[in-house]
Amino acid sequence: MNQTLNVALGERSYPIHIGCGVLTDAELVLPHLKQKNAVVVTNMTVAPLYLDALRSTLEKGGVSVLPVILPDGERYKTWETLNLIFDALLGAHCERNTTLIALGGGVIGDMGGFAAACYQRGMPFIQVPTTLLSLVDSSVGGKTAINHPLGKNMIGAFYQPKLVLADLSTLDTLPDRELQAGLAEVIKYGLIRDPDFFIWLESNIDKLLARDKTALAYAVHRSCSNKAEVVAADERESGERALLNLGHTFGHAIETGMGYGVWLHGEAVAAGTLIAAELSFRLGWLSAETVQRIEKLFIQAGLPVQGPALGAARYLELMSHDKKVQDGKLRLVLLKEIGKAVMSDEAGKELIRAAIEARCT
Amino acid sequence: MNQTLNVALGERSYPIHIGCGVLTDAELVLPHLKQKNAVVVTNMTVAPLYLDALRSTLEKGGVSVLPVILPDGERYKTWETLNLIFDALLGAHCERNTTLIALGGGVIGDMGGFAAACYQRGMPFIQVPTTLLSLVDSSVGGKTAINHPLGKNMIGAFYQPKLVLADLSTLDTLPDRELQAGLAEVIKYGLIRDPDFFIWLESNIDKLLARDKTALAYAVHRSCSNKAEVVAADERESGERALLNLGHTFGHAIETGMGYGVWLHGEAVAAGTLIAAELSFRLGWLSAETVQRIEKLFIQAGLPVQGPALGAARYLELMSHDKKVQDGKLRLVLLKEIGKAVMSDEAGKELIRAAIEARCT
Repeated sequence: MNQTLNVALGERSYPIHIGCGVLTDAELVLPHLKQKNAVVVTNMTVAPLYLDALRSTLEKGGVSVLPVILPDGERYKTWETLNLIFDALLGAHCERNTTLIALGGGVIGDMGGFAAACYQRGMPFIQVPTTLLSLVDSSVGGKTAINHPLGKNMIGAFYQPKLVLADLSTLDTLPDRELQAGLAEVIKYGLIRDPDFFIWLESNIDKLLARDKTALAYAVHRSCSNKAEVVAADERESGERALLNLGHTFGHAIETGMGYGVWLHGEAVAAGTLIAAELSFRLGWLSAETVQRIEKLFIQAGLPVQGPALGAARYLELMSHDKKVQDGKLRLVLLKEIGKAVMSDEAGKELIRAAIEARCT
Repeated sequence: MNQTLNVALGERSYPIHIGCGVLTDAELVLPHLKQKNAVVVTNMTVAPLYLDALRSTLEKGGVSVLPVILPDGERYKTWETLNLIFDALLGAHCERNTTLIALGGGVIGDMGGFAAACYQRGMPFIQVPTTLLSLVDSSVGGKTAINHPLGKNMIGAFYQPKLVLADLSTLDTLPDRELQAGLAEVIKYGLIRDPDFFIWLESNIDKLLARDKTALAYAVHRSCSNKAEVVAADERESGERALLNLGHTFGHAIETGMGYGVWLHGEAVAAGTLIAAELSFRLGWLSAETVQRIEKLFIQAGLPVQGPALGAARYLELMSHDKKVQDGKLRLVLLKEIGKAVMSDEAGKELIRAAIEARCT
């Protein structure tokens, strides 16, 4: 049974279709193509699994398909790989009205979306996420980017897709480690704005890990609902949307500091969220019991609750590139309680340093 | 006497201040800065002429300035040079609210604007054009881009500046060849939508070439008025804005085919406009006398009215990457009369080929 959510952004509004098999449902995708040409950007891992299915769905509808198959992994989210997409688009004479379809996880979605934003100053774009993380988070909301050696997602665009096809069947082939990484972003929604969902997750995390389809469908839908609401209220992150970055300032420092791809994004966000919880505790906002409760859920989800020992000074240097820094001051997403996040610059450097040292040994 | 035009784009509206000395008028620029930091992107030719003046204006207002000095020329409008800007921005810990000021001609404006569009998914941006071409055309309207080996301006963004400081004094240092190249875009406004301006240009082209300040001020103001009106009506080029590309499909083919920077953009647009006029004549839309009248003005302006002999087949291949190609069909901006341009796909390949052969020998 498919479900449809709408991301309400005026003329940039779009549907998210969630269900098993939406990837091969021609009626969902064909009406969104402006012409009978599409480019499918995917990677070497996903292509053998889902490219043929998507391709034949499109071709049966009379659409000619150009596949662009990139290497897999966060370390390829670079200019060099992005240029491979542009080379392919220009080599095949793709037009401004050709649609770019990103088939893959967060890296493919971010990079495909950024390529679509820039090619001829903007071509239509469809997200087909194939990981839990991209299903619940990165495919929705129009944030696209590539990494820079000095910072993650530093170069990009806000560029909304025309459509998201969130096919739960793709989770069947997802490695356990990737599934667990996706749960970090699922738990995030509970922590920042949906306490009932957090409680539901405490009771149902085992079902999610066992890939129970009903539980997964519920978690994906509820996560996307949360994301869609936040994005509709604050598309360009001038306010509430920044709360979606709980754990991400620390997490990006881990990803950049360890070398892109060593820690999965979700793993880094998990450890980062625990550092943020630790800091919230040290500010007197969370009780020790609440921090333990959060930690317990992440552990049950198979996620790290300690960051790597890069040293607090290195964390702070890496975090100084964060997009939320304002007038030289680091602003962090912290927790007042489970279900309530705030943006704050109240924590001084010493307190931040202490929280990092406590959680990254 | 300064004049101010407004580009009416709702919440993205911005002023264009035209006059002598606006570059050093702190009151015009300081209120637009969100924080007391600015990055000035310029090149090795312009930096010795105007960087100190702009810098001290900003520094007297308490703004700290990071200059980024790039090599000069169209052939540097590439990923590699763009990355030099990102490296500098990240190296200096520039924030999302830091303002990027592009001080230079079209290449600096296009590349600085694209860097601003992408850095942390968008930072504030100010245009300070220092060539006639950028004063009357490229600094207004928010088109930013870099080139790809297969096509000019293929990768970019629509990204509006907060402000344009159009300082006519900068024309004092402009080489004659660059001044003439800028006139191609000035004449364009007359041809596509402002027949009275075309007549004015026929009488005043010598004054412009002699750098008469009153004449230049009038031509810049009238060009920017035309551009601002078109952009306000059609920001993303879904209709009328495409008419601003008169001569550009042929012109971009010349620039790409000859190697970026061999022909100046305005020179290529001049030759391209004559090919478009030739084609309009062959379609029976323009009389031979009108084509001659157009040719005469371009010749008086010191501009080429013949394209290089790349061969019609090469022109057509280069033009097949044009952003206006739709469903495999080339759409061209052609002339119905002086002051009236249309977008048309009526000219078949053979007619286009004949026009190219007649004008590129």
